[in-house]
Amino acid sequence: MPERIRIGLIGAGRIAQVYGQVLSDIGRDVELLVVADVRAEAAAETATRFGIPQWSADYRAVLDRNDVDAVIVATPTSTHVEVVKAAAAAGKEILCEKPLALTVAACDEAIAATHDAGVRLMVGFMRRFDTAYQMARQKIAEGSIGRPVMYKGTGRDPRRTTLEFARRESSGGLLMDMGIHDFDLARWLMGDEVVRVHAEGACLVYPELAEVGDIDNAVVNLRFASGAVGNVDLSRNAVYGHDIRTEVLGATGGVRVGRGTNTDALWMTPDGVAHDLMLLPGHRFAGAFAAEIREFVRSIREGTPPSVTGADARAATAIGQAAVRSLDEGRPVMVSEVL
Amino acid sequence: MPERIRIGLIGAGRIAQVYGQVLSDIGRDVELLVVADVRAEAAAETATRFGIPQWSADYRAVLDRNDVDAVIVATPTSTHVEVVKAAAAAGKEILCEKPLALTVAACDEAIAATHDAGVRLMVGFMRRFDTAYQMARQKIAEGSIGRPVMYKGTGRDPRRTTLEFARRESSGGLLMDMGIHDFDLARWLMGDEVVRVHAEGACLVYPELAEVGDIDNAVVNLRFASGAVGNVDLSRNAVYGHDIRTEVLGATGGVRVGRGTNTDALWMTPDGVAHDLMLLPGHRFAGAFAAEIREFVRSIREGTPPSVTGADARAATAIGQAAVRSLDEGRPVMVSEVL
Amino acid sequence: MPERIRIGLIGAGRIAQVYGQVLSDIGRDVELLVVADVRAEAAAETATRFGIPQWSADYRAVLDRNDVDAVIVATPTSTHVEVVKAAAAAGKEILCEKPLALTVAACDEAIAATHDAGVRLMVGFMRRFDTAYQMARQKIAEGSIGRPVMYKGTGRDPRRTTLEFARRESSGGLLMDMGIHDFDLARWLMGDEVVRVHAEGACLVYPELAEVGDIDNAVVNLRFASGAVGNVDLSRNAVYGHDIRTEVLGATGGVRVGRGTNTDALWMTPDGVAHDLMLLPGHRFAGAFAAEIREFVRSIREGTPPSVTGADARAATAIGQAAVRSLDEGRPVMVSEVL
Amino acid sequence: MPERIRIGLIGAGRIAQVYGQVLSDIGRDVELLVVADVRAEAAAETATRFGIPQWSADYRAVLDRNDVDAVIVATPTSTHVEVVKAAAAAGKEILCEKPLALTVAACDEAIAATHDAGVRLMVGFMRRFDTAYQMARQKIAEGSIGRPVMYKGTGRDPRRTTLEFARRESSGGLLMDMGIHDFDLARWLMGDEVVRVHAEGACLVYPELAEVGDIDNAVVNLRFASGAVGNVDLSRNAVYGHDIRTEVLGATGGVRVGRGTNTDALWMTPDGVAHDLMLLPGHRFAGAFAAEIREFVRSIREGTPPSVTGADARAATAIGQAAVRSLDEGRPVMVSEVL
Repeated sequence: MPERIRIGLIGAGRIAQVYGQVLSDIGRDVELLVVADVRAEAAAETATRFGIPQWSADYRAVLDRNDVDAVIVATPTSTHVEVVKAAAAAGKEILCEKPLALTVAACDEAIAATHDAGVRLMVGFMRRFDTAYQMARQKIAEGSIGRPVMYKGTGRDPRRTTLEFARRESSGGLLMDMGIHDFDLARWLMGDEVVRVHAEGACLVYPELAEVGDIDNAVVNLRFASGAVGNVDLSRNAVYGHDIRTEVLGATGGVRVGRGTNTDALWMTPDGVAHDLMLLPGHRFAGAFAAEIREFVRSIREGTPPSVTGADARAATAIGQAAVRSLDEGRPVMVSEVL
Repeated sequence: MPERIRIGLIGAGRIAQVYGQVLSDIGRDVELLVVADVRAEAAAETATRFGIPQWSADYRAVLDRNDVDAVIVATPTSTHVEVVKAAAAAGKEILCEKPLALTVAACDEAIAATHDAGVRLMVGFMRRFDTAYQMARQKIAEGSIGRPVMYKGTGRDPRRTTLEFARRESSGGLLMDMGIHDFDLARWLMGDEVVRVHAEGACLVYPELAEVGDIDNAVVNLRFASGAVGNVDLSRNAVYGHDIRTEVLGATGGVRVGRGTNTDALWMTPDGVAHDLMLLPGHRFAGAFAAEIREFVRSIREGTPPSVTGADARAATAIGQAAVRSLDEGRPVMVSEVL
Repeated sequence: MPERIRIGLIGAGRIAQVYGQVLSDIGRDVELLVVADVRAEAAAETATRFGIPQWSADYRAVLDRNDVDAVIVATPTSTHVEVVKAAAAAGKEILCEKPLALTVAACDEAIAATHDAGVRLMVGFMRRFDTAYQMARQKIAEGSIGRPVMYKGTGRDPRRTTLEFARRESSGGLLMDMGIHDFDLARWLMGDEVVRVHAEGACLVYPELAEVGDIDNAVVNLRFASGAVGNVDLSRNAVYGHDIRTEVLGATGGVRVGRGTNTDALWMTPDGVAHDLMLLPGHRFAGAFAAEIREFVRSIREGTPPSVTGADARAATAIGQAAVRSLDEGRPVMVSEVL
Repeated sequence: MPERIRIGLIGAGRIAQVYGQVLSDIGRDVELLVVADVRAEAAAETATRFGIPQWSADYRAVLDRNDVDAVIVATPTSTHVEVVKAAAAAGKEILCEKPLALTVAACDEAIAATHDAGVRLMVGFMRRFDTAYQMARQKIAEGSIGRPVMYKGTGRDPRRTTLEFARRESSGGLLMDMGIHDFDLARWLMGDEVVRVHAEGACLVYPELAEVGDIDNAVVNLRFASGAVGNVDLSRNAVYGHDIRTEVLGATGGVRVGRGTNTDALWMTPDGVAHDLMLLPGHRFAGAFAAEIREFVRSIREGTPPSVTGADARAATAIGQAAVRSLDEGRPVMVSEVL
């Protein structure tokens, strides 16, 4: 029996369309040829796990292959710019994880390199590809809620990351690494730019994070160019699950995303009526990651720019950079101060 | 640029695992070679829609291809047995849509043919592969709710099918075609067999259905071998969406599946706070269909039996057949009467 | 300081209206003068608990008082007719708990007595006075869901009653004592009469109930005069709380009541996201009981008939009586058989 | 038939206890003797609406009555101190609407007056008496969520108030008049004091509010003495209803209050699945207002201090005053600056 099961579809009615769609979704378009990680063991294990034919401890081995069309950059944030520049030089199309970089200046460097090389630079703000977020944005775009006047975002992880990851020099810390998703959504959903931020934060649950310069809980006030206001709350101790909620209030209505349970199931016991745990990272947005990759692939095939650009990455990083400065200096910071 | 985008993954950390999983899910394992439908135009359009290389107006063209390992039978229910028998004779592995057939006798015929040919016969009770249903069953299996004592199922479509489809001779009508999912879930979740049914039903919303011998609303009482009780309600006029809900009450707890909205979004306007429409058929269970196909493919690869068998199909059809008789004769019917 | 605190309200603006409403609701209209119970201790304790000036072990002591305008009959169901007849003879207005009686014949006796005496007989179907049920009925009456075609009711208690209470001769058992609420709602919400019932039930969780002739779980199919269908499920082992849910599906929409948690609060822990326990009996419908009493009092004051009559009580009892017979005889029973 | 219906309760079993409780709740304890408002017509209408025997255009007429034990001060906030001082001088027990006053200094004046007169001063933070909030606080107090680290509050009205009311000199404006509830809950639920605030706000929907010095949307960052963080968002344009939500995240869990729909009912139509409108002011907290009044009455009867004191009122006003200053000066403000 071959590695790939070859199927014939008998019937082309309603339910056959469902099968056709599913088979089409899971059966073509992309091929993962190689994985690289400086931790050779991690690279090898990943290759085994997903049936990737080749692995390497050096990302240049990926860039050297002529049959690789595109790369996904999923290395630590502090290495993004180096890898993006090398990939651009090798002529690869690029999908880079968020944040693109920790400073506006570093973003500019990456953007320039891809611009010069004439390759795509798409950034992994996958929430934009989630069905619920897409419907929310569409409702706003249609005018269903009137002029947006308030943005609210909640981004919480169920536990802290590794200390190595949390280091501000590596990931950017809580405000940058986790906040970046909300800063991007804030721009995208409000159709507006953030001009001022004020952050309050503290290290309250994991004292060891303070030792590497990070915090575990924060709230960030936002002011938009239109005068609209907003707030983002971030936490590393949402022990009940991966809790992502977003809300836009408009002059004549509002929209909310995120009641987020893992499945559509309820347990009812003498202890209460419970949802299961909220979604784990990677789980809630599994469909969004797939849609993001399809959009990336589609843009390459059709020769169009990707829908999330380096400029989007730069704008979100600017907000994060201003939030970090606000926390450090205990005052509201204009985003223009970091541009 | 080739048809298939070849990707390299740089990084093998946490987020790289998400990308690896998604790319693995959407990039290998199955290949859809051909589609057939007696309606040549439908076959051709389906081929175009999903990039299927070949189409035919004769399902035998699928069976004649040596490079086809397996078939998905998605024709009208009344033709299932004929197609399954021919596919079995051609040595194809078979995934047949539900219900396998409209009578126990017809199921037996299909099961015997696949048994004699030594091919798999899996039946498309895709709800079993839905994450929420899997978690519900696991909770029950773990004893979280104690001994199951009541089953409740709601299966409602947003509109009637075509009159041609609704004909009892073609699809089996409301009780068989829609009820079959609940009859299967009842057996699977309760871990018990249905021994008696009593159906009440009527044609209340679409008078034209009565002319082809069907009804549009029904309730079916169930009695299980253990003495447990149950009820399934079915409707063709849930104009608000595809409404699928299931509940098992046990001696010490309960589990519910199905609060079912299309996305995780809420709209808030002066008219109220609204979910979007409940899920359309094919949409709510898109993930379940994919998991079902993966299980089918996995069973072929690993040489194991599929997890949903012809015997399961037969047992569910028996309940449906008894429900139809109960409706016709206005009395409770023992399932053993139709065996 | 006097027993009653005398208050002055300063301000008559928006918030003052809220205070006025609340003070008006809690401060006048009714006076509870006396309580009677054959269990003298229970009567005495109840008098103490609620500050009732007098108690007695003989209900005739209540009827003999000239200053008692009305009585609430909250004795065991099997004694309702005797007490109602005596109260009617004493010229008292009557609010009797549900069910009025266990047979149609007994209902007729009570109704005739109150009719002859010219006193009101209101029956305690308090769910009709619940805000959610009132809004549901209003939506249906406005035509929001089109012609009602299916009724679904869930009535579950968190534990069994006492064996003495459960006895069929005393309370009527599960089908009558708990089912009566749903049988009443079915008539009231559907605007239709039940003509046929089919019950399946069993004693599965509390074997001791079987010894007093009762069951603990049941499902009851309903057929309405219009052809509409319905189902009621009843259980004594909803260990997670008092679970009351009702649903009407119409040709062009539907309405559901009952997502029932005790408060508007959620707990989020590593074990999941939990509502608190569903509502305890008396708690979920506390507001409905108050509205019911206000309606009773208002009807007396204004000289109008109460909105829930002896005829309503009789119709619901008839359905319950038919359901009991269906369970006993294992066949669908026409409601007309018990009239 | 007398004004008050005199009732006898026959039976003292389970359901009789429910009737006893309800009758006790609606039938005694308080008597509303008089209402006063400078707008004579409003006073007269209120008297008629709630059956209050006397009305006056001068609040001193209330204070002059010897048979008035207590007063509820529900006048514009800017008049609270004057009325409270006069009521204290008249020896009346006082329940004053929130906020007690617009500045800490004014609060001190009112507190001193009631202290000198030896009368109670309770302040109307009615949310503390809501069942859901009480359960939330109990969970926190029991340690269910660990150490509280983040407070989130949403307070939104469905429309703007009158321009006269909105004037900062009259009600204190959005930050004070609406924010005060959240500032109080923040202290009460977190068991902590707010030490720093930062407000962003704007007039975005109702330009006429700007003319009287108010805004319609705001977000306020909070920092607590323990280092915990928080945010409150306020809006006057939640056109979908009165939207009150509160959340406390702790080190090992969290609690949320407020999924707030008007009733426990859902409508399902082709336009979606909708709750009814969220609760109107006075409606969501009707039960809380009643519980607040009962606590006030109970404290008078039993000679104990009320559970919400002038000190609580002062602390919440301080936070509001700091928030107003933060908005005016565009910087974080220490609460100690206004003490």
